[in-house]
Amino acid sequence: MTESARRFETLVVETDDDGVCTLTLSRPAQLNAFNVTMARELEQFFLVEARADDVRAVVVTGEGRAFCAGMDLAVEGNVFGLDESLAPTPESLRDNLDDPAYRDGVRDTGGRVTLAIHALPKPVIAAINGPAVGIGATMTLAMDIRMAATTARVGFVFGRLGIVPEACSSWFLPRLVGLQQALEWVYSAEILTAEAALDGGLVRSLHDPAELVGAAQDLARSFVVDRSPAALAMAKSLLYRNAAAATPLEAHLSDSLAMFWSSVGDGKEGVAAFLEKRTPRFSRRAEDVPRLFPT
Amino acid sequence: MTESARRFETLVVETDDDGVCTLTLSRPAQLNAFNVTMARELEQFFLVEARADDVRAVVVTGEGRAFCAGMDLAVEGNVFGLDESLAPTPESLRDNLDDPAYRDGVRDTGGRVTLAIHALPKPVIAAINGPAVGIGATMTLAMDIRMAATTARVGFVFGRLGIVPEACSSWFLPRLVGLQQALEWVYSAEILTAEAALDGGLVRSLHDPAELVGAAQDLARSFVVDRSPAALAMAKSLLYRNAAAATPLEAHLSDSLAMFWSSVGDGKEGVAAFLEKRTPRFSRRAEDVPRLFPT
Amino acid sequence: MTESARRFETLVVETDDDGVCTLTLSRPAQLNAFNVTMARELEQFFLVEARADDVRAVVVTGEGRAFCAGMDLAVEGNVFGLDESLAPTPESLRDNLDDPAYRDGVRDTGGRVTLAIHALPKPVIAAINGPAVGIGATMTLAMDIRMAATTARVGFVFGRLGIVPEACSSWFLPRLVGLQQALEWVYSAEILTAEAALDGGLVRSLHDPAELVGAAQDLARSFVVDRSPAALAMAKSLLYRNAAAATPLEAHLSDSLAMFWSSVGDGKEGVAAFLEKRTPRFSRRAEDVPRLFPT
Repeated sequence: MTESARRFETLVVETDDDGVCTLTLSRPAQLNAFNVTMARELEQFFLVEARADDVRAVVVTGEGRAFCAGMDLAVEGNVFGLDESLAPTPESLRDNLDDPAYRDGVRDTGGRVTLAIHALPKPVIAAINGPAVGIGATMTLAMDIRMAATTARVGFVFGRLGIVPEACSSWFLPRLVGLQQALEWVYSAEILTAEAALDGGLVRSLHDPAELVGAAQDLARSFVVDRSPAALAMAKSLLYRNAAAATPLEAHLSDSLAMFWSSVGDGKEGVAAFLEKRTPRFSRRAEDVPRLFPT
Repeated sequence: MTESARRFETLVVETDDDGVCTLTLSRPAQLNAFNVTMARELEQFFLVEARADDVRAVVVTGEGRAFCAGMDLAVEGNVFGLDESLAPTPESLRDNLDDPAYRDGVRDTGGRVTLAIHALPKPVIAAINGPAVGIGATMTLAMDIRMAATTARVGFVFGRLGIVPEACSSWFLPRLVGLQQALEWVYSAEILTAEAALDGGLVRSLHDPAELVGAAQDLARSFVVDRSPAALAMAKSLLYRNAAAATPLEAHLSDSLAMFWSSVGDGKEGVAAFLEKRTPRFSRRAEDVPRLFPT
Repeated sequence: MTESARRFETLVVETDDDGVCTLTLSRPAQLNAFNVTMARELEQFFLVEARADDVRAVVVTGEGRAFCAGMDLAVEGNVFGLDESLAPTPESLRDNLDDPAYRDGVRDTGGRVTLAIHALPKPVIAAINGPAVGIGATMTLAMDIRMAATTARVGFVFGRLGIVPEACSSWFLPRLVGLQQALEWVYSAEILTAEAALDGGLVRSLHDPAELVGAAQDLARSFVVDRSPAALAMAKSLLYRNAAAATPLEAHLSDSLAMFWSSVGDGKEGVAAFLEKRTPRFSRRAEDVPRLFPT
């Protein structure tokens, strides 16, 4: 950790000169188990700190031998922090999404974190360095790309505890590995080897443990150096939204807007630099992106 | 067939002590061809009998050398049983879905069966022991997992008869094998070998014919022994619904509810058993599951 | 090129006796780069000429060593032809989709072409004979099947120019290769080898360059000879629409209608021919297909 690193209570965050930010889950004595503090810090990081212009992409990994061993069950009282006096319905939850009683007493904590990761308009890469279990597995699904050490293990183990897969994993997992594989992994609740995660299409590539984080940083760097932050932000948004749009016409509406705004923006510099055979100098920020979808 | 087996006219159903129910399509002299009686019995089984608490998972296979040779075309009169005096539109069909004239005279019979399979809140595994053609192929798509004998054959052959893929297969197939593979299999209307079905991602694994049903039963057993029927039911529902939800936020709404209800239910026992290093004793039934989605 | 071939300014189109139409992008000195004329001719071809009954399927390839090198950037003025005086929003674009000011000054030109390809109720196969870059890559995503020469290259290179993937590619690409692969290819903006495109699931098969177009024509022929144009049209529509439908029940509504209309139409001949062990003679045209989805 260099002097530029920022230390949260449960995270360490450090950004290099290319804008590649490495976030390390840091409760190594607890195998980086997820608790309420980590949830709050992750949500805060992805919603606020990671929006800074000098952060161009994020790599997430774990300190020590684990990525994240899942929810820390060794806590006092109601492990999930729910308010059992409430009796939520689909309608009452939607209507009260930001009401503190529902936000803290009903909503899934892991989902609040993955929604924050998903909303970041920048590439996010999981570098799964060891066991990733429960929320440790599902939080990686909201990241764009998963790379793993050969020593990684991944487990959607919720069924063993009488609970269900959370953190919006039922949206992400079938789109990453197909419905059949998603159902089997959730039903079996087994711990997968790194090879099984690769064969199933969950992780992109396997790496020597000592080389994993460097490889993830290199891939992140290749995504952002000499690229337009605004164009990257719009591309991410288009792919996730239109992967679930009803028809290609819906995609045409939003990608037309994204092409319009990028063409009259950084696209002019991009075409000029291409024709002049030089490196482009883009100026639009991720935060400059206009609205592409109906509210 | 033991004395505990139940015999329908076209099916044999037997449930073991672990709750693994094996349903055998049983018209072997007709290669288990699908007819109106089989459709009615399958719909009845999945909507009623399979809901019993002692059924925890279902394995579907065929008697003799075939799984199901498709619609029995060797019948009198209008093979599809349609009422040609009707002229249905998208709007009239939706409005009259449960009207007997539309239910029996317009709606696709295979789709009524696959909707019943899909609605069962328990794991369903296809053990494709031989040829599975037409509705014999498409009925397996609504099952969660497909295992096949090396002698299996799968054919989406509708195009050869001047008809279209049915039984909701256009919802399931692209989500199982991707759009390109789905389009080619439907356009070609060819009979696929077991290996081609495996390579294309349609079936999970290939087995020696003598070992197929046992392997499927073992996998089913691994899904349900020492598991909460309520948590399994919610996990199945979340994966299918959110695989098609518009945004991760939609998944967050429903998986928050599922986490809430499982956490204040079987999750307490699950966490306690985990901390005490003992086998959990879950008590919630599949039928106890609350509503997770807007009506 | 035989005497039956039709020459557009930028395309050559020729249909054989089986109804297999081969469309060749034909600006070989410019590596078949896409310009406003090619866009207009492609849109016209797929919306009008390809609807003729004697066209049963379309194979798209490129003349010379390239498939399509992307947008022709060596043009005068505003390369994307946009009206910068407009400030479109999601709502204003939807409301003015067919207004000439928006159609020509805001809407993505590539998307107008891929919507026309997508709307053709007949199989379309890309025979990617060489480099396919930018719109040259994304136009193939709206085709049903992609076959490639071993010398093909595919690049979603938009990010290098400060622009975004267009032509509805954010709808198609994740459904063809999964979200993780789609994100990486778009973020990296690299030129993929034919092998990488095959491994990623983008192309169906690789071929010797000299044999590619013939293999694509043979596959197209196998889809249409002795098949019902109406049934093929409905199958294509069902697969694309229901791949994005919210629930299997939605698929049941539309495939019930398609089964009804095909069963009382070409299905009668198909079943009769099957029982009589003869080749069917179907009579319904692609244009005869009734409405399967709500308007």
